[in-house]
Amino acid sequence: MRFTSQTSSDGVTEQLFTLPFTFGEIPGVLWTPDGATGARPLILMGHGGGQHKKAPGIVARARRSAAECGFAVVAVDAPGHGDRLRSAEHDRIIAEMRARAQTGGELAPVLAEFHTLLAGQSVPEWRAVLDAVQELDHVGAGPVGYWGMSMGCALGVPFVAAEPRVRAAVLGLNGAETSAEAAARITVPVEFLVQWDDEMVPRAASLALFDAFASAEKTLHANPGKHAEIPVFELDSTLRFFSRHLG
Amino acid sequence: MRFTSQTSSDGVTEQLFTLPFTFGEIPGVLWTPDGATGARPLILMGHGGGQHKKAPGIVARARRSAAECGFAVVAVDAPGHGDRLRSAEHDRIIAEMRARAQTGGELAPVLAEFHTLLAGQSVPEWRAVLDAVQELDHVGAGPVGYWGMSMGCALGVPFVAAEPRVRAAVLGLNGAETSAEAAARITVPVEFLVQWDDEMVPRAASLALFDAFASAEKTLHANPGKHAEIPVFELDSTLRFFSRHLG
Repeated sequence: MRFTSQTSSDGVTEQLFTLPFTFGEIPGVLWTPDGATGARPLILMGHGGGQHKKAPGIVARARRSAAECGFAVVAVDAPGHGDRLRSAEHDRIIAEMRARAQTGGELAPVLAEFHTLLAGQSVPEWRAVLDAVQELDHVGAGPVGYWGMSMGCALGVPFVAAEPRVRAAVLGLNGAETSAEAAARITVPVEFLVQWDDEMVPRAASLALFDAFASAEKTLHANPGKHAEIPVFELDSTLRFFSRHLG
Repeated sequence: MRFTSQTSSDGVTEQLFTLPFTFGEIPGVLWTPDGATGARPLILMGHGGGQHKKAPGIVARARRSAAECGFAVVAVDAPGHGDRLRSAEHDRIIAEMRARAQTGGELAPVLAEFHTLLAGQSVPEWRAVLDAVQELDHVGAGPVGYWGMSMGCALGVPFVAAEPRVRAAVLGLNGAETSAEAAARITVPVEFLVQWDDEMVPRAASLALFDAFASAEKTLHANPGKHAEIPVFELDSTLRFFSRHLG
C-alpha cells in the first residue's frame, strides 16, 4: 500500500493510495479525522456504476462520517472504473449496454452480467483493501461497515456475505437479480434504500432483495423520486445506523 | 374541557380531561413537560383497535416526546374504546369480527366497515380536541403532528386529510382499503411504518396506502416482524421526524 498524496480540510484528512493486487493496482482514498490515532470504526464505500472513488456522493458521505462520527472511510475505484484500465470484456459489455440503451432494448440481463463479472474481481479486492487499511495505526482493527448503492450494492452484497469483519451494511438501489443468493447469507444488520420511482430498478426487484436478506435486523427506507434522488435526510439516518452498530 | 386529575413524574406532567361533544364526553389525556409555558409543537396520538388513550405504547411515546422534545401530546379514547360507551352498532360489528375470527372468516371487510363508522365520529372529535387543547396556555397554537398506527392510522388518514393544522404525520400498520381516497388528499410529510411480516395487514395493501399519499416528502420504513413488533429504534426516528417538521 503506497500513499501518493495527503490533504486536509474542515478537520478531515484525505489520503490517496494505490494497492498492488492481482488485476493491477487498486487506486483508493482514505478519509480520517485530522490527528486520528488508534483503532476506530471503518466504513467501506462502494460507488455506483460509471462513477469512481471520489464521486461527489461518496466524498460528501465520507467527509461527514469522518467529521461527525470519527470514522475512517475508504473508497476504491471498482474494476473498470475511475483510473483503472478496462478489459476487453468490460468494453464488450459496456458497448452492449450502450447499444441497448439507444435502441430501447432490455438492460437488466446485460447489467446483471456486468455486475457478476465485476463482483468476481471486487470481492477479493475489497478483502485485500480491508487487510491493508486495518494495519494502519490511525484505522486499526475496529468494527467495519459497508455502504453501497446501485452497482455499489450489487458488488457489496457478495462482499458482505463473504466477509465476517463487516458488522453492518447500508445497501440499496439494486434488485434481487444477481444478488438474492448472496443476500440470503447476510445476517448482519442492513439498512436498505429504495427509490419509489426508480427508473432503473423495478420496485418488485428491490423489495425482493430486501426480502432475501437473512438479517434479523433489516430496515427498508423507501422514498419518492428517481434512482439518483435519495433525500438528504437519509444520510443522517445512515450515520445513525452505523453509529448504533459500529460505535 | 374539564381537567379531572394532574400528576407528574420524570419531568412530565400528565393531565386527564373530559371534553363534552356530540357523541358523549370524550375522555383524554394531555402530557406536557413540567412547568411548560407558552406555545409548543403538539402531537395527537391515535391508539390502535381494542386499545385506549393510556395503552402502554401511547404512554411511552408520549412521555418521551414531552421529555426529550418538549412537545405537548394528547390522546383520547376513540369512539367505542376505553372509557367510552359502545353503541349497538359498535357491538354488532365487534360481535361479527369475533365470530369471523373464530371461524376463520374474512376479517378485512368487517374491519373496514368498523373503521369507516368510527372515522365518521373521530374526525370531528379530533378537531374539537385540537380546538380545546390549543387554547391552553401551556400548549398554544404551535405546529401540530399526528401519530397513529393500525386503527390509529385508519382514523388518522381522513383526519389529517381534513385538518390543515396538521403539518406532519407518522402513520402505519394499515392498508389502503378504506383510506386510499383520503390519503390522496394528504400533502404534508408522512413517515409510514410497515411490518414486513404483518399477520393482519397484507403487505400489498400497506404499500398501496404508502403509494396513495400525495405528499412530496413521504418515507416508508419497513421492518421484519409481526403487526405489534415495531422495533424500538423507530421511536427514535419518529421523534426526529417530528422535530424536523414541527421544531
